[in-house]
Amino acid sequence: MLVATVVGSGIMADRLTDDTALALLGNTLPTGAILVVVISVLGPISGAHFNPAMSLVFALRRELPFAELAPYVAAQILGAVAGAVAAHLMFELPIVEASTHVRTGGGQWFSEAVATFGLVMVILAGVRFQQAAVPWLVGLYITAAYWFTASTSFANPAVTIARALTDTFSGIRPLDAPAFIIAQLAGALIAMALAGWLIGRGPVSAKESV
Amino acid sequence: MLVATVVGSGIMADRLTDDTALALLGNTLPTGAILVVVISVLGPISGAHFNPAMSLVFALRRELPFAELAPYVAAQILGAVAGAVAAHLMFELPIVEASTHVRTGGGQWFSEAVATFGLVMVILAGVRFQQAAVPWLVGLYITAAYWFTASTSFANPAVTIARALTDTFSGIRPLDAPAFIIAQLAGALIAMALAGWLIGRGPVSAKESV
Amino acid sequence: MLVATVVGSGIMADRLTDDTALALLGNTLPTGAILVVVISVLGPISGAHFNPAMSLVFALRRELPFAELAPYVAAQILGAVAGAVAAHLMFELPIVEASTHVRTGGGQWFSEAVATFGLVMVILAGVRFQQAAVPWLVGLYITAAYWFTASTSFANPAVTIARALTDTFSGIRPLDAPAFIIAQLAGALIAMALAGWLIGRGPVSAKESV
Amino acid sequence: MLVATVVGSGIMADRLTDDTALALLGNTLPTGAILVVVISVLGPISGAHFNPAMSLVFALRRELPFAELAPYVAAQILGAVAGAVAAHLMFELPIVEASTHVRTGGGQWFSEAVATFGLVMVILAGVRFQQAAVPWLVGLYITAAYWFTASTSFANPAVTIARALTDTFSGIRPLDAPAFIIAQLAGALIAMALAGWLIGRGPVSAKESV
Repeated sequence: MLVATVVGSGIMADRLTDDTALALLGNTLPTGAILVVVISVLGPISGAHFNPAMSLVFALRRELPFAELAPYVAAQILGAVAGAVAAHLMFELPIVEASTHVRTGGGQWFSEAVATFGLVMVILAGVRFQQAAVPWLVGLYITAAYWFTASTSFANPAVTIARALTDTFSGIRPLDAPAFIIAQLAGALIAMALAGWLIGRGPVSAKESV
Repeated sequence: MLVATVVGSGIMADRLTDDTALALLGNTLPTGAILVVVISVLGPISGAHFNPAMSLVFALRRELPFAELAPYVAAQILGAVAGAVAAHLMFELPIVEASTHVRTGGGQWFSEAVATFGLVMVILAGVRFQQAAVPWLVGLYITAAYWFTASTSFANPAVTIARALTDTFSGIRPLDAPAFIIAQLAGALIAMALAGWLIGRGPVSAKESV
Repeated sequence: MLVATVVGSGIMADRLTDDTALALLGNTLPTGAILVVVISVLGPISGAHFNPAMSLVFALRRELPFAELAPYVAAQILGAVAGAVAAHLMFELPIVEASTHVRTGGGQWFSEAVATFGLVMVILAGVRFQQAAVPWLVGLYITAAYWFTASTSFANPAVTIARALTDTFSGIRPLDAPAFIIAQLAGALIAMALAGWLIGRGPVSAKESV
Repeated sequence: MLVATVVGSGIMADRLTDDTALALLGNTLPTGAILVVVISVLGPISGAHFNPAMSLVFALRRELPFAELAPYVAAQILGAVAGAVAAHLMFELPIVEASTHVRTGGGQWFSEAVATFGLVMVILAGVRFQQAAVPWLVGLYITAAYWFTASTSFANPAVTIARALTDTFSGIRPLDAPAFIIAQLAGALIAMALAGWLIGRGPVSAKESV
């Protein structure tokens, strides 16, 4: 649903206007909104793990068994690709198509590292201090990160792979995807190190857990 | 009030700008906002049932007596049409007029099925796990769905009927309405089947009920 | 602060763009946001009564002593005019100036009655069922009402008077103000009658009171 | 992170559109969103003190030891400059550059005093009555203040210094920064005096503290 929103709203916004800022706004607001919704709704069912970089951090912190990491990542990539396919079907495009949207260069990679660093910090601190607010914090963080980074903040390896399969507003050339993913993992690991020192582990009180 | 907002803000936005993306933004934000308000305000009074597809699901789940389904649907359609009439009076248009806005094709129908599927999932999971957040989740979901679907997400048979009666930005040609409604009901029933398996029934704890 | 925001953001938005829909968006979002803030902040201090139509309803419901109605309304008008003056000083305009913005006709008056009807319903139902959410409900309601009404929803006699004193985007010709105020009071009284029958009085439980 | 968002989203928005109102919207929404996030996340860790004007008020109210004021302000300025540098690196601009954006005159200075006055009132009243809502109130207040003031509401001396070091949309000429900072401190002190009389000190109940 998340990737269907990222891709679908990008197609919709891009079709309706010639102004790129307005298209990005029409891509940002739905993405932020759906993040609040899917994390709220799927959190109590499955924990709402959509992000391989985040799952890697949880595995390294021993909050997710390492044996479950691979199936999680596989499910995340499958779900993301299914979202891109659903968006294509809704807008009557080919099921998948390789993106031709060039996204490369040091500024873009630094942006992805910063964006994922911030996302992991927000989630780790949020889970510890304000578990009930996490869906809102993530939705608002990504709303901001779409605009404050030069890359519009993919910040998720599974979403990056799925976006390589759509030749629309939100796509990324398959050739450019690996560097994005490496930058995302680097940002996530730096955040994990800083958070381990700054905030420690787990929720402050079990009563706050959902 | 919901339909008055959908139709009225569509008229307002369409009159004020030539940019369709901006008009859709001026249609989306008021719709999302008013959904939060009307579900919050009417929830404690009447349960805030505005959607025949949703009421059908509740009836099939035996959470609404079948005998009440027909009066609910009739009231939903009447209220929706009254909202369209009110919007027309505010903007000094004919009381009702048949829409000429063509909305048809497989992508549109698949969009309506996806949109209604998501809405029913959000409501069933929200009612079960986070009853107090349901108004927000529905408002944010529809904010996203306006943009990620090719049809701008009607997702409500009563609203679809009312929108057939306005020849403005948010209208739908009466000829195209039945296929939209069939797609909505199909999406709702698929969501009901999946939710029955995934989340079970009723709120997790009675204390969370409003 | 509310009127400074309505008038100030109207000036800012109007100066920055030629697109009226975008200007209205730049007028809507700040107004909705500041409403949440001022009701949250001033609610515990003074009750956050900014609206003479609302105060009249509270007086008629005997929730505000009639003797206090006149001083409340006077303070509301003074505060609103001070807000318009502050906005003018910030944007280096004359302290006050009669508006030349024509806003008249049956559609506009019906819009004001509907807008104020909805606002009073939201506040009375909100105070009764969800007191803590009232700032959000009012902010979101006005966000929607800016767009779904033909008049952009003044819905407040004190604000209407202050907006007659600014010849900018959000102004209203002094000649047109009385009919707006009459329509607002009519909408408020109809809402009071309906709410008396539908929801009764006071908060559901004292524990929810702020 | 706050300054990276202010500066970064200003660069992004300015690059993508010719419409200044739209650019300001693309600057406003990320700033409001990130404020909610960083205050929520850093509040429990460090108190989320980002604003020298606010820290001065806390020191004068004896809620922050005077000896800690200088290190706080130094950290705030360092953090703000680091944010501007990060935004420049993401968008592949020189690390710092003196702004040429002229922002001067009585209307601008009065705007900064009003903006900071409002911010301090919101924080002092928020901390006293609704501590858990403070991140939202500050985010929404700044969202509104970007538009209702003629200066787009810097309202923070550390942010003002950092914005003097970026020659982009959100910059301010170094020559113009001191008057902005004086106006901000004046607004903060007036708010402190008024709040001392109107609301008193500290949270109403310790139970509400995070």
